[in-house]
Amino acid sequence: MVIAFIYITILVSIAFMFYFNKRMMEESPGNDRMKEIADSIQKGAIQFLKVEYSYLAVFIIAVSIALYYLLGQTSTISFIIGSLSSALAGYFGMNRSVRANVRTANAAKRGINEALKISFSAGAVVGLGLVTIGIVGLLIIIFVFPNDINALLGYSFGVASIALFARVGGGIFTKAADVGADLVGKLEAKIPEDDPRNAAVIADNVGDNVGDTAGMGADLFDSIIVNLVAAMAIGAALKSTDLVAESQIFTSAAFIFPIFVVCAGILAAIVGTFFCKTNSKNPRRALSNAFLITCAVMVGIVFILNSFFFTNLNIFYTVVIGVLAGIGLGKATEYYTSYDFKHVKGIAESSKIGAATNIIHGLSVGKRSTFGIVSILLIAIFFSHLLGGLYGVAMAGVGMLALAAIIMAIDVYGPIVDNAGGIAEMAGLDKKVRNITDKLDAAGNTTAAVGKGFAIGSAALAALALLTLFAEEAGLTGVNLLNFKVMIGLFIGALVPYLFSSYVLLAVGDAALKIAEEVRRQFKKIKGLMQGKVQPDYKRCIEIATKSAIKEMIVPGLIVISTPILVGLVLGAEALGASLAGTLVTGILLGIKQSNSGGAWDNAKKLVEKGMHGGKGSAAHIATVIGDTVGDPKKDTSGPSLNIVIKLTILVATVFVGFF
Amino acid sequence: MVIAFIYITILVSIAFMFYFNKRMMEESPGNDRMKEIADSIQKGAIQFLKVEYSYLAVFIIAVSIALYYLLGQTSTISFIIGSLSSALAGYFGMNRSVRANVRTANAAKRGINEALKISFSAGAVVGLGLVTIGIVGLLIIIFVFPNDINALLGYSFGVASIALFARVGGGIFTKAADVGADLVGKLEAKIPEDDPRNAAVIADNVGDNVGDTAGMGADLFDSIIVNLVAAMAIGAALKSTDLVAESQIFTSAAFIFPIFVVCAGILAAIVGTFFCKTNSKNPRRALSNAFLITCAVMVGIVFILNSFFFTNLNIFYTVVIGVLAGIGLGKATEYYTSYDFKHVKGIAESSKIGAATNIIHGLSVGKRSTFGIVSILLIAIFFSHLLGGLYGVAMAGVGMLALAAIIMAIDVYGPIVDNAGGIAEMAGLDKKVRNITDKLDAAGNTTAAVGKGFAIGSAALAALALLTLFAEEAGLTGVNLLNFKVMIGLFIGALVPYLFSSYVLLAVGDAALKIAEEVRRQFKKIKGLMQGKVQPDYKRCIEIATKSAIKEMIVPGLIVISTPILVGLVLGAEALGASLAGTLVTGILLGIKQSNSGGAWDNAKKLVEKGMHGGKGSAAHIATVIGDTVGDPKKDTSGPSLNIVIKLTILVATVFVGFF
Repeated sequence: MVIAFIYITILVSIAFMFYFNKRMMEESPGNDRMKEIADSIQKGAIQFLKVEYSYLAVFIIAVSIALYYLLGQTSTISFIIGSLSSALAGYFGMNRSVRANVRTANAAKRGINEALKISFSAGAVVGLGLVTIGIVGLLIIIFVFPNDINALLGYSFGVASIALFARVGGGIFTKAADVGADLVGKLEAKIPEDDPRNAAVIADNVGDNVGDTAGMGADLFDSIIVNLVAAMAIGAALKSTDLVAESQIFTSAAFIFPIFVVCAGILAAIVGTFFCKTNSKNPRRALSNAFLITCAVMVGIVFILNSFFFTNLNIFYTVVIGVLAGIGLGKATEYYTSYDFKHVKGIAESSKIGAATNIIHGLSVGKRSTFGIVSILLIAIFFSHLLGGLYGVAMAGVGMLALAAIIMAIDVYGPIVDNAGGIAEMAGLDKKVRNITDKLDAAGNTTAAVGKGFAIGSAALAALALLTLFAEEAGLTGVNLLNFKVMIGLFIGALVPYLFSSYVLLAVGDAALKIAEEVRRQFKKIKGLMQGKVQPDYKRCIEIATKSAIKEMIVPGLIVISTPILVGLVLGAEALGASLAGTLVTGILLGIKQSNSGGAWDNAKKLVEKGMHGGKGSAAHIATVIGDTVGDPKKDTSGPSLNIVIKLTILVATVFVGFF
Repeated sequence: MVIAFIYITILVSIAFMFYFNKRMMEESPGNDRMKEIADSIQKGAIQFLKVEYSYLAVFIIAVSIALYYLLGQTSTISFIIGSLSSALAGYFGMNRSVRANVRTANAAKRGINEALKISFSAGAVVGLGLVTIGIVGLLIIIFVFPNDINALLGYSFGVASIALFARVGGGIFTKAADVGADLVGKLEAKIPEDDPRNAAVIADNVGDNVGDTAGMGADLFDSIIVNLVAAMAIGAALKSTDLVAESQIFTSAAFIFPIFVVCAGILAAIVGTFFCKTNSKNPRRALSNAFLITCAVMVGIVFILNSFFFTNLNIFYTVVIGVLAGIGLGKATEYYTSYDFKHVKGIAESSKIGAATNIIHGLSVGKRSTFGIVSILLIAIFFSHLLGGLYGVAMAGVGMLALAAIIMAIDVYGPIVDNAGGIAEMAGLDKKVRNITDKLDAAGNTTAAVGKGFAIGSAALAALALLTLFAEEAGLTGVNLLNFKVMIGLFIGALVPYLFSSYVLLAVGDAALKIAEEVRRQFKKIKGLMQGKVQPDYKRCIEIATKSAIKEMIVPGLIVISTPILVGLVLGAEALGASLAGTLVTGILLGIKQSNSGGAWDNAKKLVEKGMHGGKGSAAHIATVIGDTVGDPKKDTSGPSLNIVIKLTILVATVFVGFF
């Protein structure tokens, strides 16, 4: 039976997780100082997740009770399973990366390829782990509640809501610590990044794990699930249509095929991982080789699988469109945010005059990038719709997200080497070690652009598919913008990303302020700290960041969840449909703008640091540091959270559609 | 005949224009140095308009030829009349303000009330003049092409396209000169604003006239016309409905009533102007008294007029809703941008840590403000729709915009006293004079918030009304978001404000860079300049600003005009409807965000300059200056231009609807 392919893939995936994990854990965690630092980071990260999860437990219980009374058992149980697997995915990612960071630092003593091997192995463990947890969770749902769309929706509602809180909470933590550390460290005290005298330095490194790994893990996990659920739900409804009548094996081929595509992605990622090797000076090529080989292998496997399910190649083509669109989005993101191209060069040029022109230029580039990114998306939507209707659009999203394992591997690798660099700096390791981790970090930054492109693109495709699903569930035949109530709905929905982003940005700014004040206070009050004789109180900064992050994630999260419910209750289902479309449109645009202006500012700074326009310490450099700091919460907190926001609003609406 | 009311109002308006103009021109333009400076500003402004209008002439001719072949004589002639009256309105405003500035400076020698009298008289001349030009132009169209909606559309298409170019070109000029002057003057050379040693100082003052007066004049002029046309076009279609069947005089009461409301606004503004007096220390109260009295008088007149047209008060109420919403929008804008409230205080607080937190906080406040502003708008839309259907919504817009004369008076007064202060500084007048103009300027800034609220609000109301008009002309019964092509249209339309804003911001940044480099070059190359022995080459900066502004206004302008045509041709009328809605939604949100974050940064700077957090010269002050500079092109170029963008896209679509 062809279904065995799924089980075999899961087993193979688990086997390779153990293999890669062993490869990583065999490396020594280095000397005592390194272990001590790694231990502080680990404890800080676990402490944060503990506090965060205890708050989320309250949320899960409250929502479960509401779901139970309003919608019954199925939705409640699947919501709980979704929440738990999302939390597990976040914890799993964080738990591996806090072990990989110090081992990567130690391996870097022996050379760049050794460090790459360790960090990328850890990335692969996390990538495979996340996708596997997702599929297993889905299979449980399918077997416990067969043929029940509400169960699938409940499951992804759980996944998405936890993902949102994890993304926002982790994002506030990491950027508040990062900005707070830089504001006093780099700009005032003029000490380098990751200097152990900076009281926020451990918090900054904890942030890499709870924000960039756990937060992003939950985010990508959410993308996989939501894309799969969207495609499966639409596929299930297709049972009786021409498309599936052509299927050879399942009557519900369109329903189950998405999982096969994701399995193909897992197997391909395992193959790709073995091609991630560098002995040259170009680790970036190692990463992009691994990625491209994964794409090729996956497309090959899907081609074969397609013949078991469909008599024509249309759905295969939509998957290819998804993969190509993902690569295109990555390239476009690179065009707007890499210093090899004119936009970032322009920002660096503007920085000669000052911070204000740097900021104005960066804001302009972010806005400009919406055009390139959205154009690619619209082309992908147009052609996948042509080939496979709405199911085709959803499958393009699945094709994009089937690469999640390798994308996650590359994305997680980034914060791990970043952390490794921090540990090397704090432990006073040889400069060579830091150079190696810096090189790996730079390679990761560029490749991470690809990941961002995939996250945004797949969110848009999933959201479009879900929107139609919502309309079907609501029994809507149209969402007519000429109706006044509907237009009001459109405006309300469009407001959500703005309001959400306003709260999140402010939260980072405020928390960074508190941390900066604490760092400054410690420099003043703790004698001998500046001379490096005494250690600062690292824990205080971690506590401040944790408290702020948890407190500040609540309001934006509730805005996102409650708006669709309120609009549905007050204005009805049709206006709610427009409201969701409004959130989708402004969420996508704002998300792209924020991610890319942040990325562009970051790389403009790096360009100046490479010696352009006066190099480090010049007026231009100070301007780019300000730009980079402004961009931090945009690109790493607010921007990527919006991907979850657009999906979550539609899921909430679809889950509660019966009441509108 | 009740129609005589319109003619009498026009005559009364012209009489008072002469009266206020005489009151202003009787003031002496001061000593030779003052005259010389005023002369340079005047010449620079006229030179700019000359270059700008010669480019616009090419545009008008090209579009006229296209219109003639595609749509025939009516659209062409009314387009030309619209373009010319828009150009005339811009020129008229600029022409008065360059005479009022130096006279205000001279009057300020004798005291604050004298200066207020001169500057506000000039404002009143411009305000009355603009509204009168608008009404006369509309009457010509109505009489030449009776009962022809296409003529009205052609007319407002002409008005809006010239307004857009004037707003963008003038906006780029003024902010490039302002930012360029500040970047080198305040931040590098540490010389005060308007210091005659700064080579960009005359360009900066020219900018006040071509951007803030001519640009904003064209903008408000556009608002009046588009709101009137929207209401009249919808009113014309109402001929046979219940609403107008109740009318006592005209069968087309709903068609002509909007002009009566605007006339009421003119008469009320004349009354209000006489209440603009101050001998206290609070000139702000003088302005707000004038404004509130105008509102009250207008509502009274409209109440009486209503009884001649309608048997119930519904339409009167929608006008009142428009006025109240306008006031509410002004108050809300003040809440987000005045230093009396928490948001601006928060930005100032963030500035203690640095420019980055100042910027992050300001961006957050701008986003937050969309919620308050849009909520008021949606409530106004909801109730005016309830009272008078679509016509009610349009009439709320007319009610808001009927106050244009007094709003324009207040808005024009601002750049005039700003200029007067510059002239006082450059001519080396007594410090007392500058203090008086500063006080008047500050009062104007706060009251200008009201004007911005009106501009945004009326744009939204007009756009909504026009959108339905477009649908009617296109024969659409629905714009269904569940249709994929329609969704693609929504995305394309939503992109327009982002792309437009990207170009405009970049244009200001680039032009400011060029000007800053020129100022810096002159400081280096011209010996004795810093010591005040030699004059800088003012003309060079004016030339640079003019050239940049003209060159850079073309691409964003064409994006706005060509997008609806392309979407209509490729995707059809329904997708075009969604595209217009997309532009409307993101245009409103982006416009509000940009205007208010800019305003908030500006006032955070002023708060610090009043002594908060270290006062002038402190680190916090430098941070707020950077924030203010970032905000300048947002609040004075890109933000307000978006009001025109949303209306112009719908007008273009409606004019060319026959081809889709």
